[in-house]
Amino acid sequence: MTNSKSSKDEFAFIGEITKLFSTYRENHIKVPNGDDAAIYTPNQAAKGQVICVDTMVEGVHFTKKTMTPFDIGYKSLAINLSDIAAMGATPAYFLVSIAIPKDWQEEELIQIFEGMSSLAEAYQIDLLGGDTVSTLDHLVITITVIGEIDEAKQLRRSHAKPGHLVFITGQIGSSAAGLHYLLHHQDRKEMEIEAILPLIDRHQRPEPHLQQGQIIAELSTASPISLNDISDGLASEANEIATSSQATLVIEKEKIPIPETLSSYAMKLNQDPYHWIFNGGEDFVLIGTCSKELAPILEQRFKDEALELFFIGYVEEGQGEVFLMQNDQRLPLYKKGYNHFSNR
Amino acid sequence: MTNSKSSKDEFAFIGEITKLFSTYRENHIKVPNGDDAAIYTPNQAAKGQVICVDTMVEGVHFTKKTMTPFDIGYKSLAINLSDIAAMGATPAYFLVSIAIPKDWQEEELIQIFEGMSSLAEAYQIDLLGGDTVSTLDHLVITITVIGEIDEAKQLRRSHAKPGHLVFITGQIGSSAAGLHYLLHHQDRKEMEIEAILPLIDRHQRPEPHLQQGQIIAELSTASPISLNDISDGLASEANEIATSSQATLVIEKEKIPIPETLSSYAMKLNQDPYHWIFNGGEDFVLIGTCSKELAPILEQRFKDEALELFFIGYVEEGQGEVFLMQNDQRLPLYKKGYNHFSNR
Repeated sequence: MTNSKSSKDEFAFIGEITKLFSTYRENHIKVPNGDDAAIYTPNQAAKGQVICVDTMVEGVHFTKKTMTPFDIGYKSLAINLSDIAAMGATPAYFLVSIAIPKDWQEEELIQIFEGMSSLAEAYQIDLLGGDTVSTLDHLVITITVIGEIDEAKQLRRSHAKPGHLVFITGQIGSSAAGLHYLLHHQDRKEMEIEAILPLIDRHQRPEPHLQQGQIIAELSTASPISLNDISDGLASEANEIATSSQATLVIEKEKIPIPETLSSYAMKLNQDPYHWIFNGGEDFVLIGTCSKELAPILEQRFKDEALELFFIGYVEEGQGEVFLMQNDQRLPLYKKGYNHFSNR
Repeated sequence: MTNSKSSKDEFAFIGEITKLFSTYRENHIKVPNGDDAAIYTPNQAAKGQVICVDTMVEGVHFTKKTMTPFDIGYKSLAINLSDIAAMGATPAYFLVSIAIPKDWQEEELIQIFEGMSSLAEAYQIDLLGGDTVSTLDHLVITITVIGEIDEAKQLRRSHAKPGHLVFITGQIGSSAAGLHYLLHHQDRKEMEIEAILPLIDRHQRPEPHLQQGQIIAELSTASPISLNDISDGLASEANEIATSSQATLVIEKEKIPIPETLSSYAMKLNQDPYHWIFNGGEDFVLIGTCSKELAPILEQRFKDEALELFFIGYVEEGQGEVFLMQNDQRLPLYKKGYNHFSNR
């Protein structure tokens, strides 16, 4: 880490952290973590450098009640990898900036980096640097991930075309239901924790759909595919694709799978599971659209790899709207979700 | 920006921000700001991708009393460009993540990005993306910069060798004195503001020494040069070079230039200007070492470009210590400065 606020103690801390990470791209890393900046040479076979950044804030995206330090580290990297997945790219490097308040102990901070390390190992990505600073009150983690992709593979939000089918690469809603449990019912003893674990797990340790993104990217050289990761909920992401593509997406409600644990949790609390499915977010599966001709090929490729894929709607001519079909009724599906400015 | 917390209002805000920035590398940017991640293709003439990240936190690195929103944006990008300068690289792209508390108005936020935009224009770098999230109390800005460099050019903290001379690319201490004024004497009417403006200016709008870094990098192919940017103060950065290089740096006190405004400000307040020079930091000039043979060549190159360069010491065999020579006395010069863990 290039630690602008350095000291002997902080050097020791950074040393501890650095030990948690292995090096996978030794031939490409010319200056590792530790100088003013890191230097790497791109993989010549995949010229496109894919880069994104995401921030998680204590009290907004997590609390010590909803996530362990390990989970916080895991998830802060996972949400970035999910963006890389949505481009169909291969993650290669990452940098971590962390703003630390006084009430976080060094042990907890190490656990945060252990969470990141578990994912870095799973996907063989290299920590290239970062920054460690103090803050007055809430922990803030910002991760930048760099991936690589063959430029010919193109997955864009703007690639939805009339006649396309809409697909998702996994079941959704569980993360939001898991968060609901963690916020409201964690102390209720009568809840059977085993029945809820898959929901909690999805909230705390979402799996980035990198393999799925890469399979989809391979097929994108044949015909345009749109793709987005579901960070803000199905309604929101479907609207982003519709807006970017200037087309109308129609989601068929009965085609959306409902995870069994979600369904039984909702029933127990007399809640509508679709609230979580449409607006919950943070499931980090992928949503996209592809041509009708490509759909069976995509389906077969996913089947071969034992991966889930659900076709849940279609694309029409339009100006960027999303509709929900329910019992032959067509209702507008607006994007909802968290809004910094409307909360003022 | 890939805004994970999107909404109509926030889209409008991001639209406003995006308008502030021009595109300079159109041929290299395959997916601009606005999808899940951005994609660029590296410049084939300069294969090394240089990457670093830095965070500025309200209440720690700035307050509304010490910096205008424009300054905050300017400086948060400048400190990253300074890291790129310390590698001798050319900055190309950047990403911005901002965690915004409720008490910051949209107008102020736009001004922050205007500050970044002024530097982005000066150095022709492209905004590739970012993240906009809420936080509960203090503003946090994290910037990631990507630069490019010919791999043959190597400037490392670890390149100091016995026999080298130590140089700095500008006068130091002014930023810390400027901060001292802003924190303690801003309301004192008897202070002549004109006499202090250069100090304040250095604190609020430090100039990244990119041109200097690039000149030094050109000469690094002939013989090893060590280089670091002075973010934490001369004492701290000299120690980093000494430690990384496992050599001893000797700084000759009488060779360090004292800016006139710094000297007169210190005199007025009966303060020792060397406190700011050694431990102040945030001047963002470069400190490095080069061979005695290279020194006059470096000096001439800087003279040709009308750039400042001061030789302030030399390198000896050693185990990573720094000494200050003062009236033939040799005193250890320890790294000081801000320390997250020692403040607990």
